[in-house]
Amino acid sequence: MDSSAAPAMPEWEVSQWFNTPRPIRVADLRGRVVLVHAFQMLCPGCVINAVPQARRVHELYGERGVAVIGLHTVFEHHDAMQPHALEAFLHEYGLRFPVGVDMPSEDGQPLPRTMLRMGFQGTPTTLVLDRRGRLRVQHFGHVDDLQLGVVLGQMLAETPDSPAA
Amino acid sequence: MDSSAAPAMPEWEVSQWFNTPRPIRVADLRGRVVLVHAFQMLCPGCVINAVPQARRVHELYGERGVAVIGLHTVFEHHDAMQPHALEAFLHEYGLRFPVGVDMPSEDGQPLPRTMLRMGFQGTPTTLVLDRRGRLRVQHFGHVDDLQLGVVLGQMLAETPDSPAA
Amino acid sequence: MDSSAAPAMPEWEVSQWFNTPRPIRVADLRGRVVLVHAFQMLCPGCVINAVPQARRVHELYGERGVAVIGLHTVFEHHDAMQPHALEAFLHEYGLRFPVGVDMPSEDGQPLPRTMLRMGFQGTPTTLVLDRRGRLRVQHFGHVDDLQLGVVLGQMLAETPDSPAA
Amino acid sequence: MDSSAAPAMPEWEVSQWFNTPRPIRVADLRGRVVLVHAFQMLCPGCVINAVPQARRVHELYGERGVAVIGLHTVFEHHDAMQPHALEAFLHEYGLRFPVGVDMPSEDGQPLPRTMLRMGFQGTPTTLVLDRRGRLRVQHFGHVDDLQLGVVLGQMLAETPDSPAA
Repeated sequence: MDSSAAPAMPEWEVSQWFNTPRPIRVADLRGRVVLVHAFQMLCPGCVINAVPQARRVHELYGERGVAVIGLHTVFEHHDAMQPHALEAFLHEYGLRFPVGVDMPSEDGQPLPRTMLRMGFQGTPTTLVLDRRGRLRVQHFGHVDDLQLGVVLGQMLAETPDSPAA
Repeated sequence: MDSSAAPAMPEWEVSQWFNTPRPIRVADLRGRVVLVHAFQMLCPGCVINAVPQARRVHELYGERGVAVIGLHTVFEHHDAMQPHALEAFLHEYGLRFPVGVDMPSEDGQPLPRTMLRMGFQGTPTTLVLDRRGRLRVQHFGHVDDLQLGVVLGQMLAETPDSPAA
Repeated sequence: MDSSAAPAMPEWEVSQWFNTPRPIRVADLRGRVVLVHAFQMLCPGCVINAVPQARRVHELYGERGVAVIGLHTVFEHHDAMQPHALEAFLHEYGLRFPVGVDMPSEDGQPLPRTMLRMGFQGTPTTLVLDRRGRLRVQHFGHVDDLQLGVVLGQMLAETPDSPAA
Repeated sequence: MDSSAAPAMPEWEVSQWFNTPRPIRVADLRGRVVLVHAFQMLCPGCVINAVPQARRVHELYGERGVAVIGLHTVFEHHDAMQPHALEAFLHEYGLRFPVGVDMPSEDGQPLPRTMLRMGFQGTPTTLVLDRRGRLRVQHFGHVDDLQLGVVLGQMLAETPDSPAA
């Protein structure tokens, strides 16, 4: 995992936040490893695999150096996945980590802005940022618990200002 | 499974149907074993266990004597689970069996009519009707595949007019 | 499931029994549905899927009309799967139903007698006999809980002397 | 995970090795992270969870810094778990990493030597050694994939001679 070429994570564009008293910017998370879980509430692969995984990472490592951020990247069935529906979803699935709504694009573009800008291929998409805010992993589809754990462990072991990181 | 005391299944009250060209009444299914799967699209236990189970029963036995009927019994988060959202859900989860929307009650009663009348304790609730339209099983919570299979097999073996049934 | 052509189950040839005070013949089980679970203690597919399934059928239906019989059909690694090792296996996996050791063949034939005679393709193999002792199912490989349940339920619904059975 | 107090891993006592052309000593693995998987071939918790996990770690990380070592710590049913039976087990479960047989104790002590000396409470037991050969994790029972991954990732990020390690 050569990190020297990892790009800085661009700022997400979020129209509404849940589970946080104030908006969160990427820079606010500097110093922590960040797991970004991009999902849609009506996407079966998200609900069955990725949502429970994000929840577990938050429960086990949320106080131990890993910030978990949900990003609701709605690109289909927009009417069915409005923020009030997302709020019910977060309640029912017991998700306590901050979740932002990826800002809708204009002019009929179905993909929301962050998703479009970062080239997500679909949902679920998993991002891992290191302690310096660099995007080290961007993966479309299910990520295995063991492999996600190894990546998180490696980045947790890095120091924010180490030259190796 | 003594069936002699099983009550007739009361008629469901449905405001809208999906996956069927016309409304379905309980009596239309006479002669077949019927699995009724009462669920909410934002209920985790439904989505993770009961929905895939109903789908499999439909795929394996839908042409072999078992009618599968979904009943969307919304009793919480009503705004988030309107019919247009259900339609997106059915599409995303690949459900092809008929699904009816349990008719909302009046006067601020959160439970819909069929759920209220039949005393469902929550979702998921599984009903099994025999070939004569009698309610033989009503179960709240997950039903094990093996046990559901045994019940379906026993009822499939009954004839519509057998005195034993 | 047309049963009219189902052959009578041939007698198994067993060199040693566990979990039963006396040898069991096929005819002794007449009147009950019989699940025969043919396995090897060092076969991963048996241990991970079929053994727990047989155990559950025994726990749920052993007192409700289904006899579960294990058949240890050793056709490879004979030295590692002798009866004393099987006894330890049955203890560790908590299996309480009768298990017979399929009698070894002579003259260097690696397949044991019942396996050879009945043409089992490997392990696990599942047999289901109806209440009249007829072999209605013979399946190599994993059987799904739902489908096994339906078959058991159908045969439980038959009477031992019904012409339909 | 403060590593400063971690003890050096004591040498294992092995009577026979499989899947390696020569005996392996703890010191031979210096520089790599080591996952030691102590198991018994007839222990259900080992077979269903820990053995597949060790196998996956070997497949994914065996060439990327993690040495996986099995240790067959037989403390019950000794007759059924002799080395020739273990060899059949390794073949059937497709395990390719080195596995050592924990040396039996003398004088009727049922626990083998390494298990006894290190105070394993049973099987499965998981050990993780860092690149400097220090015992950083000793856990009895199932270890979750996510948590095992984080530990491995953290140790992979350490350098063999870093003062922090």
